[in-house]
This record gives sequence, structure tokens and C-alpha cells, in this order.
Amino acid sequence: MTKMMKAAVFVAPGRIALDERPIPEIGPLDALMRVTTTTICGTDVHIMKGEYPVRAGLIVGHEPVGVIEKLGSAVKGYREGQRVIAGAITPSGYSNACLAGDCAQDGVGTAHGWKPIGGWKFGNTIDGCQAEYVLVPDAMANLAAVPDGLTDEQVLMCPDIMSTGFGGAESANIRIGDTVAVFAQGPIGLCATVGARLMGATTVIGVEAVPARADVAKRLGADHIVNFRECDPVAEILRLTDGRGVDAAIEALGTQATFEAALRVLRPGGTLSSLGVYSSNLTIPLDAFAAGLGDHKIVTTLCPGGKERMRRLMSVIASRRADLKPLVTHTFALDQIEAAYELFAGQRDGVLKVAIKP
Amino acid sequence: MTKMMKAAVFVAPGRIALDERPIPEIGPLDALMRVTTTTICGTDVHIMKGEYPVRAGLIVGHEPVGVIEKLGSAVKGYREGQRVIAGAITPSGYSNACLAGDCAQDGVGTAHGWKPIGGWKFGNTIDGCQAEYVLVPDAMANLAAVPDGLTDEQVLMCPDIMSTGFGGAESANIRIGDTVAVFAQGPIGLCATVGARLMGATTVIGVEAVPARADVAKRLGADHIVNFRECDPVAEILRLTDGRGVDAAIEALGTQATFEAALRVLRPGGTLSSLGVYSSNLTIPLDAFAAGLGDHKIVTTLCPGGKERMRRLMSVIASRRADLKPLVTHTFALDQIEAAYELFAGQRDGVLKVAIKP
Amino acid sequence: MTKMMKAAVFVAPGRIALDERPIPEIGPLDALMRVTTTTICGTDVHIMKGEYPVRAGLIVGHEPVGVIEKLGSAVKGYREGQRVIAGAITPSGYSNACLAGDCAQDGVGTAHGWKPIGGWKFGNTIDGCQAEYVLVPDAMANLAAVPDGLTDEQVLMCPDIMSTGFGGAESANIRIGDTVAVFAQGPIGLCATVGARLMGATTVIGVEAVPARADVAKRLGADHIVNFRECDPVAEILRLTDGRGVDAAIEALGTQATFEAALRVLRPGGTLSSLGVYSSNLTIPLDAFAAGLGDHKIVTTLCPGGKERMRRLMSVIASRRADLKPLVTHTFALDQIEAAYELFAGQRDGVLKVAIKP
Amino acid sequence: MTKMMKAAVFVAPGRIALDERPIPEIGPLDALMRVTTTTICGTDVHIMKGEYPVRAGLIVGHEPVGVIEKLGSAVKGYREGQRVIAGAITPSGYSNACLAGDCAQDGVGTAHGWKPIGGWKFGNTIDGCQAEYVLVPDAMANLAAVPDGLTDEQVLMCPDIMSTGFGGAESANIRIGDTVAVFAQGPIGLCATVGARLMGATTVIGVEAVPARADVAKRLGADHIVNFRECDPVAEILRLTDGRGVDAAIEALGTQATFEAALRVLRPGGTLSSLGVYSSNLTIPLDAFAAGLGDHKIVTTLCPGGKERMRRLMSVIASRRADLKPLVTHTFALDQIEAAYELFAGQRDGVLKVAIKP
Repeated sequence: MTKMMKAAVFVAPGRIALDERPIPEIGPLDALMRVTTTTICGTDVHIMKGEYPVRAGLIVGHEPVGVIEKLGSAVKGYREGQRVIAGAITPSGYSNACLAGDCAQDGVGTAHGWKPIGGWKFGNTIDGCQAEYVLVPDAMANLAAVPDGLTDEQVLMCPDIMSTGFGGAESANIRIGDTVAVFAQGPIGLCATVGARLMGATTVIGVEAVPARADVAKRLGADHIVNFRECDPVAEILRLTDGRGVDAAIEALGTQATFEAALRVLRPGGTLSSLGVYSSNLTIPLDAFAAGLGDHKIVTTLCPGGKERMRRLMSVIASRRADLKPLVTHTFALDQIEAAYELFAGQRDGVLKVAIKP
Repeated sequence: MTKMMKAAVFVAPGRIALDERPIPEIGPLDALMRVTTTTICGTDVHIMKGEYPVRAGLIVGHEPVGVIEKLGSAVKGYREGQRVIAGAITPSGYSNACLAGDCAQDGVGTAHGWKPIGGWKFGNTIDGCQAEYVLVPDAMANLAAVPDGLTDEQVLMCPDIMSTGFGGAESANIRIGDTVAVFAQGPIGLCATVGARLMGATTVIGVEAVPARADVAKRLGADHIVNFRECDPVAEILRLTDGRGVDAAIEALGTQATFEAALRVLRPGGTLSSLGVYSSNLTIPLDAFAAGLGDHKIVTTLCPGGKERMRRLMSVIASRRADLKPLVTHTFALDQIEAAYELFAGQRDGVLKVAIKP
Repeated sequence: MTKMMKAAVFVAPGRIALDERPIPEIGPLDALMRVTTTTICGTDVHIMKGEYPVRAGLIVGHEPVGVIEKLGSAVKGYREGQRVIAGAITPSGYSNACLAGDCAQDGVGTAHGWKPIGGWKFGNTIDGCQAEYVLVPDAMANLAAVPDGLTDEQVLMCPDIMSTGFGGAESANIRIGDTVAVFAQGPIGLCATVGARLMGATTVIGVEAVPARADVAKRLGADHIVNFRECDPVAEILRLTDGRGVDAAIEALGTQATFEAALRVLRPGGTLSSLGVYSSNLTIPLDAFAAGLGDHKIVTTLCPGGKERMRRLMSVIASRRADLKPLVTHTFALDQIEAAYELFAGQRDGVLKVAIKP
Repeated sequence: MTKMMKAAVFVAPGRIALDERPIPEIGPLDALMRVTTTTICGTDVHIMKGEYPVRAGLIVGHEPVGVIEKLGSAVKGYREGQRVIAGAITPSGYSNACLAGDCAQDGVGTAHGWKPIGGWKFGNTIDGCQAEYVLVPDAMANLAAVPDGLTDEQVLMCPDIMSTGFGGAESANIRIGDTVAVFAQGPIGLCATVGARLMGATTVIGVEAVPARADVAKRLGADHIVNFRECDPVAEILRLTDGRGVDAAIEALGTQATFEAALRVLRPGGTLSSLGVYSSNLTIPLDAFAAGLGDHKIVTTLCPGGKERMRRLMSVIASRRADLKPLVTHTFALDQIEAAYELFAGQRDGVLKVAIKP
């Protein structure tokens, strides 16, 4: 008799609901993880709203913290009962993209080995982790042991938010002495702020209008907060940098306004590092782009995954270089996940991220 | 009594004319170069048409080959009579931008040391070289001795076209085994083709509809030519790459159509290296950009300058790794420069580049 | 009844002999390759002589070209009968080292995920390919389809010699306009010469005393040959570079003399890219090292492997950017492999590489 | 009548003495700086002892903090009376090395444009700054304005110690999550520790036996201190890293023992970043080097200079990302400089760095 589990399922645009599903059966390369804590991502809200299409019936969620319940027959190097996380992006390790160091664009199953966003599988192309159990594909490439002494909440940002936010700073090649602007201080923008500072930026300017988010930004390392409701953020950032502009601007919202402002505050030769998930075409203004002659760089980054990435991010937490617990503002049981979605999607009650406990 | 020289001068939108000007007097850091050969750039045509604004009366041109006539009092390491070139971009060497390795965005005279397109001075902010003589600023940073045995025509592409085109390949980080598409095979696109191949690209696809340009592209190293008048270049490039897309696409025209197509043919994680001088806003289509999640990079490059760059480019010519003489299709005396502009601007008679002989 | 095959086996120091072995049985992630062509590497000679220790009874060889005979139960994306190669280095894809882009130092089975030379398995830690059949571990990460139209001999250098030699050029970050010296023009040095030239070096200086090798070097792209028996190679290279030294020196022999000379010919800030397998401690002379103040870099490279690397190298061959067939100077049947070792180890008869045909 | 000033002069091996010298006359590109604070470097002690040769009569010292007294006729962008520093390394900006981004190996006056250690001029090839006044060559490339609110002592480490120590971390390409060992916690090692941490290292291991230095190291960011007198530092570092080794090891002393230990603690693929000034040949042990197959990198770094570097380092201080005042343990008047040398050379009284006040 098939054992059943509870899971949050995409039903139809507008609706994610708790349902019962069989506990997954695993293949030789997989692992079954019992989920002890997970969370909801802005992308899940896009899915709920039907803005990012997934198949009806899919279990959503891509940020698992848990315990190894069962290992596939070909999986070595782990033991059942081990506390682990897996990244939101679960590279196979063996695609051409992975072997070229481009794991997020993993192209397993494609003839040519690269596939846009192909590394993002959980809650996108396979069942996700807002459930009691989740099947982790290519387990040897993806399961990362949680260091002793770290709680679920401490590592809950590693699978996506922290990896993405830090990735934005890394893709911008932040160097000691850089000035960096981060547009939007939601969970990912906050992690970009932390990442920029960790890499040696000496001036970090956070752009944010919500006071609670501005406060967290300052606590986590922003030197200045620019409230775009109270001033022209471009003019203000140029003022703060004596007219020089910033070495790097990180976009962490996904709108034309922030993308454009990020470009306008760059010094010549600077880098716009884009993290946002856009929902319409973007415009590059001719003047901000110096007609194509400004040595500008625009780079995008999909959340880096894989067990080595997770190991590194957890070492940041374990070494107390960053403390991202302030991002976890609310806790819900899995049974209450519909309420959690409502709170999170509505950005009510100062929510940054919610912990979901199956 | 001031000695006079002939020079091509921007008079007003629509008109560049030969005129008489005083031979420049030089300061301690300058050199006076007697121009033996120069050429006309697409940018000069933009200036002529008034699309790129410069002050009326300015001597135009930024690609000088010549002989040192006189050295400033503080200039060491050169001798009068020496055959030299200077780049289109003449970095000071001492601005913050230069010292950070960002010479094209030289910001001499600005408080903050970075200025968009600040390194481009000849025929833009100071008198240019379509003249009998030209003053070279910061001579020690800019004069590069022509190796024995090379003719003026052989090194005439170094100051701008070759430096820019190669720069587009370099900014794309072409690696051995890459597949590269180059949109437009005008002089700069041709040099990008040569540069991509020199860096180890194993498939170079040139996009071009003009048969003469397509022929030169093949001769200089393109493996395939895609005629965008006869097919959808995006579909054709995807076909040529078995659906994989290219590792890098170099835009060498400056239009929305080529920019967009360049983005559409990229594999996930690929680089769009933009060389074109745009004249209007650009649109990034949401789908081609994978909503910001494709790990795409868009980079722009202004022609690298300075004597070390010129030395390296001339070593490419001297070692016969590339032969760019086929780009020089016509020769005019300086006296005939108005006719040269007419031919070049009209792209008549299969012209690629013209040699101007003062 | 177990089916048997012929294989070259390390018996004891001084002796590699043809023997009979069972055809390997494969696990779920493996593939069985029927070897159609393989070759002998300098490292195999070290193994034969007992200078590099492997266990007695091991099948040697790490450069397989062949056909897929059988696929493991979990292997997808291939079909039996397909023509393939695998690299000398067979990364798992899922170790921490691999996921960090450091595939050659694959540490499968180690707690910490990095192991020196851990990616080299064939003929080192598992049975190799100088045999009728070879088991390829982690097949999905390692099998690369041979493009139509390429012969075994054309791709025979890809698994090791070409990957290593090109790797030496890549690790040296060769750029357009560089001057490069390559010490020793054996098979790997020749490939380093080809790689340096493919990346845009405008002066490639090969150091070699054997006339036949010098000839091949010139044919494959060396601009100058320095015969170290007829002159001091350091003085000669400095003379050839007008006293400037080289941007990069590639060591492809594995001796103190070549290592030291490579350091002495570097310009300040230059890179010594070391490919040799050394057999004793090395000395860095104080003067050549500028007392540690010369911004020198010394980098070592183990042959990059994995199917994406193989795909790229085969694209170099398929695009005719390089032709390495001149390296294959002799052909033997597998039955004659002892004679092949004798010829190759003795460097007799102008041998560069031998093709072995099972 | 020539105006005179006091200056510390190298007399003969074993002796640096206070003497009277004419105040320098400046050329068009120079500036005269009135020195308000300077310091003594370990290299000055080498000079004093005759271990690093300079000409008798040279004014020593290369770490100037002061005020612009006079500007050369061609110097623009500064004003007399401005508070400035200059780096220990004073690049011209216009040499081939500088224009290639290799400023420390500035080769002004050499035909080929690169010269080992050529950027280090103060107290080496021209008069230095342990004096009331110092001539700063190529002033526009080298004078960096001190931000308002910073004291001389706060920026005193920027010209050399901080630039060198941070340079060691930068050359090691420290990334978020790295584990780094720093051998020796003298002034430069301490700055390497700070730099590694600023770049995101999550475990920094300082190797030091002097308790006072170990204490400062911990205060400035070392996570662990390994006392090499109490244990085998290699074994201890491998223990601290669970056998994995470090991603980067920074050598900051200049001895065979530290160089070798730094190599031995590297993980495969790791980087040894060497800052020490060696006084004899170095040995690379075969086993530690994995016979040349470990993908190891050994990189050396000479103190980066130039005004942009100084601007960046001062921004680190101004933003309070690092506080290096604890390194200034003693203060002397210029008149007492002989006593200062005695204290500093003898490493008496817990000295790290001395402030010298002309």
C-alpha cells in the first residue's frame, strides 16, 4: 500500500492548496529527504498567480532543509538520518553545462547539453519540497551535510535566497573598495547587500521604501538607505558618490524602473548585476548606456546550486560572517501553508520569509 | 608667422570640409605628429551628419599613422623622425580610470576620475588627425613605434577598427572551441571575426547581406555566412549550431535588430558583446532574456587605446597572424577628402576603408 | 562463462606485458567501451619503469577511442554502437571538486571532496584502455560522441595530449599579442605550441634539440626554434624578445633545467605554466624570482577531462583549426604493444605517438 | 641659497643616519610633498643591513603621508596645501607595463617597458620620504587626497603594508566561503589576514608564535592562531580543515620554512600567494607539489601603487571596514629615527610599526 504524505500543490492559477500525495519512490541516483523546514519564495507566488507556468498538480517549493530518509542504490558518501540541505537548483553534475561550470543552466536530456533555467527542477519540472518528503535528484551532486550546531532556521536561506543574493554580488565581481547600490531590500536584495559587504564593498547603498526592510538592511550592512518614495534614487546615489556613480548596481526586484535606475547610477565601466525575475520586456535607455560606448556590463545570475555551493554558504553561517535569521520573520506548520502563502504574497505584517514546518 | 596646414573640419551638420589651420603648438607632454596616412571611420560619418555632436570648427579623424615631428619638453623615450601610430583613444595614463585599467573611460580633469567615453579625444574633444599634422596628448602613453618593415596601410586599422573589433572578441572572453556569431561584417565586424578566430573560436558565423563583405569575411576567417536578407538569421544560426546557440554573439552594427538577434542566438550563459554605436533606446525581449534567469551577459566595449595596445596589435600584423590590408579598398589624397567622405558614407564601390594621404 | 579480452598489464617495474583479462562487468553508472584505437603516454612509460607506482596487475592506458558496447542501467543520453572517446581524466561530475569546476582533482570517496590527481583513474586507480574493452566510470560525464567524418587517428590526441597541452596554454591565460616560449616539443609541448597559437600568441618560441620534433613544431605553428644544445636558451629567448622576456613560458618536460629556464625568460608579471611530471624537488632561483617581488605566477595543470572538454577539443579538429595527425607517427596492433612500448620509451625512429589497434 | 632639510640616509651597510640634504627641486611632472608622518618598513631594515643594495647617500623610506608643498608646472588637478599620500610604488602611468595594468613592474626608461620591481622608486632608485620633504614623481598618477576626517596614523599603512597585505589576498582570488592560512602575523601578514577576511574568507588561520602579534591577529579577524613553536603548523592546519587543506595560503615572511608549509597545506587546486622578500633560493618539494599535477598556483605580488589604489584603500579605512591603527605601536620624531630603526629592527617592545614625525 502506498504511503501518503501532505504536500502543497499548484491547482490552478490563483490557487496552491494542501493535498495528499504518495511518498515518492526513488531511483538509483536519488535520495528521499524528510523535510523538516522549508519556506516560500517570491517565485512560488508567481507560480500561484499563474505568472510562471507549471503543470497543475505539481508539488511546489524549492528550499528544503531535512533529513535523509532513504538513499538510491547507486548513491554513496551519505548515510540515512543525516541532516542535509539541497539547493533550489539541483544540477546533475554530468551535463555539458555542469562540466563547463554552468550548473544552473543544466541541460540533462537535451541533445546539446544546455537549457535555460534547466538546473531549476524542484517545484518547476519535478515535485518540490513544500511537503513532508521530497525526492532529491542526482543526490550525490546535491545533498550537503548541515554542520553540527546549526539550526534549520540558520541554514534555511542557503538553498535559494542567500545563494541568489550572494550570486548577484559575485557576478558583479565586487572588489575591496567598491561602491555598490542594491535596488530593493526584500530577501534577495538583503542577501545581495550582505554579499556585497562580505566581498569588500566599502559603501553599500540600499534602495528601499519599506521602513522595516530598510531597518534590516542597515542591520545587515547597508551604509546608506535611499528611499525612492522620498527622492529620485538616481540623483541621490550620484550625490552620495560625489557624482562618480557606483562600481556595481544590483537589481533585486525585476522591474523596468529598478533596472533602468541601476544602469543610470553606474560609473563608466561599471556592472549592472541583475537578479530580478522580469515579467515584461526591458528598455535600455540610450543615454544611460552611453550609446553602447560606456564599457558597461549587464549580467544576470540564476541561483547557483549543488552541494559544494551549499557547503560554502553554510560555512558563512557557521563562521558567523553573516546571520540571516532576521529574515525568518514567521513560522507556520505545513498544514497552515495556505495562510502562509496569503501572508507572504500580501507582504503583510512585516514578513520577509516564513519557515514552514512539515 | 604661424605655419598653416590643411585639415578636414566639421563645419555644420551635413558638412565636413577641407580648410587651413595653424600647425598645433605643443605643450610639455605632447607630441606633434606629421600624418602620413589616416582614414575615415563610421563615427566620422555620424559626426558629419550631426548625429554625434562635436563643436563646429573641430578637425575630425582619430586614426593617425605618421612620423614624430616634434616632442614636448617633458617627453622621453622617443626621437623625432620616428614612425609611429597613436590609438583613436588616447588615455592619459594618470587618471583614476587608467590606473584601474579602464583607459577608454579616462576621466582627466574630472574630480572623480571616470568619464564616459573620456578616452576618446581626437576629433571629439580635441583636434583630430585628418590633417597634415596632429597634436598627440600624453605622448608617452600613446605613441607606439611602427615595427620595421610594416607599411602605413598595414597598420592603418590598428588605431581603431582592429582595436575595437578585437576588443569585442576579448570582452566576450572567447575560448578555444567556442562558437561565435558576428552581426554585420563591416570593417569592425570583420575585425571581430578575425579576433574571434585568433582567440580560438572553432565556428565563426558572420551575418552579412552585402556580397563583397561576405567574401572578405570568408577570406578573413568566417566559417559560415548568414545572409539575413535570405533567411531568418536567428533560426539559421540555431540550425547551424544544432539548436545549442552560440557561446558569444558580437554585435557590430548598432541597431535594435542586430542587438536582439544577437541575444536570441545565445546559449544560456552566453555573452552578447556589443560594439555598435546605437542611436536609439534598445529593447531586451523578455523571452530572449529568459526573464533575467539565463545567466546571460551583455558587455560593451569602447576601442582600447594606449601605446601598449598599439604595440600588441602591430605584433599581430608583423607576425602575419592577421592581414587587414584587404580592408583598405581605396586611397585618396587629403585634398580629396570630401570625395572620400562621399564614397565612404555612401558605401559605394565596395568600399570598406579608405586610406587618406596628407 | 566469463568472456576474456587481451590487455596490456603492469607486471612489475620494468615490465608491461600483454595478458588475458575478463571483459569488465559494468555498474549502473558505467559504460563498456570497445576500444578501436588507443595510444601510449609518457606517463605509461613512467609506470612501466616503476617511477610512478600502480598496483601490479593493473591494465594500463588512459587514451581511449572506441564504440559503446554496453550502457549501465542508469545511463541515459547515449546508444550502443555510438563512436565515442573519453578523456584520460574521468571526473564523476558530483564531487565537491567537480562542482567547483576543479574536475581533474576529483575527490570521489573522500570526505572533503578534493583529492590530488583524483580525476585520473584509467590505468592509475582503475583498469585502463590498452585493451580490447574498457569500463568507463560515470559514463554520462565522460562519453563524448565523435563528430561524423573524423577518424580515430584524428581524435586520438584529444583524451590527454591535446587536452593537457592546450590546458597549459589556457592556464597561462595567453592573450592576443603574447609572446610565449614552450620548453620541449614532445607531444605535449607540441600541443602547447598549437594551443598558444590558437589563443592568439603572436610569437611562439619552441625549445627543442631533436630535429624531427623541431620540424613538426615549425609545421604546427612555432615561429622560432631554439636548440638548447647549440645555444643558451635563456639568452637566446631574451635576444629574440629584445630583452623583454616572454609573457608566458610553458614547461612541457618535467626537469629542473627547463623549469628554471622557463622562469628566467619571463618578463616581470609573466606566467610559468608547468605541464611536466617532475621526479625530484624543484629549485626556484632567487634572482630569477626577483626575490619574490616580480609579480610572477607559477601554475600547474593536470589534463582537463569530461565530455564537454572532449567535445570542444574535437570541435577544434573538426573545424580544421588544428591537425594533430602528424603526431601519430607509428601504428601497432594491440598484440604488438610490447614492441610499441619499446619503440616509444626509446624514442626511436622519430616516434612522437603510436596508434594501438586492438 | 639652497634650502636644507633633515633626512634619513643610507650611509653604508649597517648604518642609516640622519643627515642634511637640499630640499628637492621639482620638474614639470613632479610634486614636492612636505612629509607629516612616515614609517619604517622591513625592507628598510634589509637596506640598512646591506641585504638589499641601494646607493650610499640615498634618502630611504617609501611610505609618505603629508601635504603638497609645490606642484610641477605640468601637474593639474591638485592644489598646494592639500593633504595627500603616495604609494610606496609610484607608477608613471605611461609605461607599457602600466598601460597593461602591471603598474608595480613599471619600466620607464627601458626600451621594452617592463622592469622587475621598477615601480618601486622611493628609497630604492630615487630619494625616499624619511625626510622633511620628498619629491613625488609622476605626481598626477600618484598623489591621492586624504579624505576629510582621517588622521595621518589612520592612513599610514596605505602606501605599503595594507596595499601589499591586501594584494596578497587579492592575488589569491579569495572568494566567499574560502579557508585561508596566513603565514606570519607581522604587519604585512596582519594586513593579509584583514584582506582575506574582507574578501569573504570564512576561516582565516594565522600562523604566529609571538603572543602580541597573535593577539592583534585575533582582534583583526583571524579565526584560529597556529603557534608553530608548539605544534607542526602543517599538521595543525590540516586538522583544522578536516584534512581538506586550505583554498589559499598567504606567505608573509620570506623563508623556505613558511613557503614550504604554505604549499603543504593547500588543497589540490589551491593558491599559494607569496608576499615575502626572500633572501635565498627556494625549494618546491616534489610531494607537496604533487609532482606538478595538483593544479597548484604560486603567485607573487609586489605592493600595488598609484593614486586609484590609494583612494580605494583609504575608502576601506574611512568606511570603518578595517582599522589598522593597532599596527602603529610607537611614535618618534624624525630626529630620533636612528632609535626608531634600532627598536624596529630588533622587534623590541612589541613593536609592529612606528610613526615617524618630521
